[in-house]
Amino acid sequence: MSKFISKRFDTLEAYVPGEQPQDMQYVKLNTNESPFPPAPAVLEAVNAAEINHLNLYPDPEGKVLRETLAKHYGVKLENVFLANGSDELLNFFFMTFCDEEKPVAFPAVSYGFYPVYANLYRLPYDAIPLREDFRLEPEDYCGIGKNVVIANPNAPTGRIISVDEIEKIVKSNPNHVVMIDEAYIDFGGESCLPLVEKYENLLVCQTFSKFRSLAGGRLGFAIGSPALIEDLDKIKYSTNSYNINRLTMAAAVATIENDEYYVNNSRIIQANRAYTVEELGKLGFETLPSKANFIFTRCKTVDGGTIYRELKAKGVLVRHWDKPEIADWCRVTIGSREQMDVLLEKVREILKEVG
Amino acid sequence: MSKFISKRFDTLEAYVPGEQPQDMQYVKLNTNESPFPPAPAVLEAVNAAEINHLNLYPDPEGKVLRETLAKHYGVKLENVFLANGSDELLNFFFMTFCDEEKPVAFPAVSYGFYPVYANLYRLPYDAIPLREDFRLEPEDYCGIGKNVVIANPNAPTGRIISVDEIEKIVKSNPNHVVMIDEAYIDFGGESCLPLVEKYENLLVCQTFSKFRSLAGGRLGFAIGSPALIEDLDKIKYSTNSYNINRLTMAAAVATIENDEYYVNNSRIIQANRAYTVEELGKLGFETLPSKANFIFTRCKTVDGGTIYRELKAKGVLVRHWDKPEIADWCRVTIGSREQMDVLLEKVREILKEVG
Repeated sequence: MSKFISKRFDTLEAYVPGEQPQDMQYVKLNTNESPFPPAPAVLEAVNAAEINHLNLYPDPEGKVLRETLAKHYGVKLENVFLANGSDELLNFFFMTFCDEEKPVAFPAVSYGFYPVYANLYRLPYDAIPLREDFRLEPEDYCGIGKNVVIANPNAPTGRIISVDEIEKIVKSNPNHVVMIDEAYIDFGGESCLPLVEKYENLLVCQTFSKFRSLAGGRLGFAIGSPALIEDLDKIKYSTNSYNINRLTMAAAVATIENDEYYVNNSRIIQANRAYTVEELGKLGFETLPSKANFIFTRCKTVDGGTIYRELKAKGVLVRHWDKPEIADWCRVTIGSREQMDVLLEKVREILKEVG
Repeated sequence: MSKFISKRFDTLEAYVPGEQPQDMQYVKLNTNESPFPPAPAVLEAVNAAEINHLNLYPDPEGKVLRETLAKHYGVKLENVFLANGSDELLNFFFMTFCDEEKPVAFPAVSYGFYPVYANLYRLPYDAIPLREDFRLEPEDYCGIGKNVVIANPNAPTGRIISVDEIEKIVKSNPNHVVMIDEAYIDFGGESCLPLVEKYENLLVCQTFSKFRSLAGGRLGFAIGSPALIEDLDKIKYSTNSYNINRLTMAAAVATIENDEYYVNNSRIIQANRAYTVEELGKLGFETLPSKANFIFTRCKTVDGGTIYRELKAKGVLVRHWDKPEIADWCRVTIGSREQMDVLLEKVREILKEVG
């Protein structure tokens, strides 16, 4: 840290992304990426003509892509906002709508970036504990009189709440924005997007990084009431007008137009999830019910840190946090069947060695 | 604006990017893009293998690209910071280093985004008037005891100050950060990068959007002391860890490795600049001395607004601002020789019609 940094950030602790070690090739099951490449049409969309136009700025309004998304989701252009990954969108949410007078609430066990944003902007916030088995109790957020962010399915648990439950939260907080972070909604969950038409205070956040196999392209988007989108736009045009690059926009349009490819991939992931949960169960693992492309699981005989370290030594990366309330558990991305078989094989070895 | 937006932003006025009208094909001389496509090597770098890896996150540290830039500029990895366009970098600068106790100073006529950032973060700031003929007087910034941002060459004037003058400003403000925004340095100016080794409070900002023909890829970078870079990293990892996408990183490495192509393009731009200034001079235009890929010019007989509107009607876009101090002037990007000839032809027509 330099002596020049603003005092505001003296004690700020940044987010720590999942490790990307370069020392060897790992079976990477730690950052919830898709094991599938983008659809062949994406390869065609990012073509020589597009690359040769990189000397020109992208459309700051991202109109073609926003229209494509609007059509796909049955909303209007003015309901759609684009961000350089959904992290940028979450950042804008905390910056735009939250302040001393408008505090924010989110689950105590959820995406680790939420408290980072809250601390960055020095926001008063409630980190609301989950209930038994990491269940999120919607009643805890009803009429809370604060802005709310809920990841649904939640991370790292994978658990989901229903659209009806979300509606209760949104309806009971008419003077505050409710952001539903649906990064993992397309692996068997039901999206709350149909509620957007009804509630001016609902913002739904999605990403191209998981279901849409485009983590490397960096694209997230929000769908919400035109007034909320206008607010986000104001902050975007006050920080970085051209936030989405040309190639990502071209790739994203082709992605949406080839939805079937991704829906089919999701079916494979869901089947691999069921298989992995079952096989881990046979090995004495307890796994939370997941509607995401990852599972949150613990071994009854070996602690989470050991599982994580032993798997890493054997070339398989999963995610583990040293926080007391989740230290027993590991979050495991659901990859291809081959990747899951490697995971299971290594887990069996570990159980023989240390179990 | 919704009722949900934080009161902090009630009166914020966002930046207005140069217009990108879709109604017809214009000769676009309004946003300082390069008329040249990226080097052929960029096309090879953004290949099928890269696109097929878009399901994976980019390296959040951007190590390969930062190493390439470090080698190119004779600095170390820890001197280099990457941003999603230099606007994101400028945003980080204002956010990270400026506050109530550390106000900021910049020229009153300069890049229009600076006051937007200052207002966004509610910073006290000095907008320091330029001198005669829009000359920036370095003495105005010496020992000012504030953070300083100077675009060099300045925009929209194109005027430059020397490395010696910059050194005086940096040296005389040892407790504040001096950011030199060198977006346009590679069109005949001399970079102050060699000063970075000597001064811990100097941050140099560059972009891939102009000289490097990559405006559509969104990439900016800073070179500065490791402590300043660490501060910027802290804010990056608290807002958007994966801020640069994979394809842009691949394109950028190929760009730096093919510097000669771009140096040659810059020679052409500089020749076209001299040609345009001379031809406009014959038509009664006064043009400021420019070291950028644009010129700031005014017609002695027709006001800037009329020139801008008439040119637009004839299919040529230039940039004009309605602010009193620069309302006489237009900023004209230097494009290809063919584009400049279209501009000159249209100017001649306008002078016949309204001059």
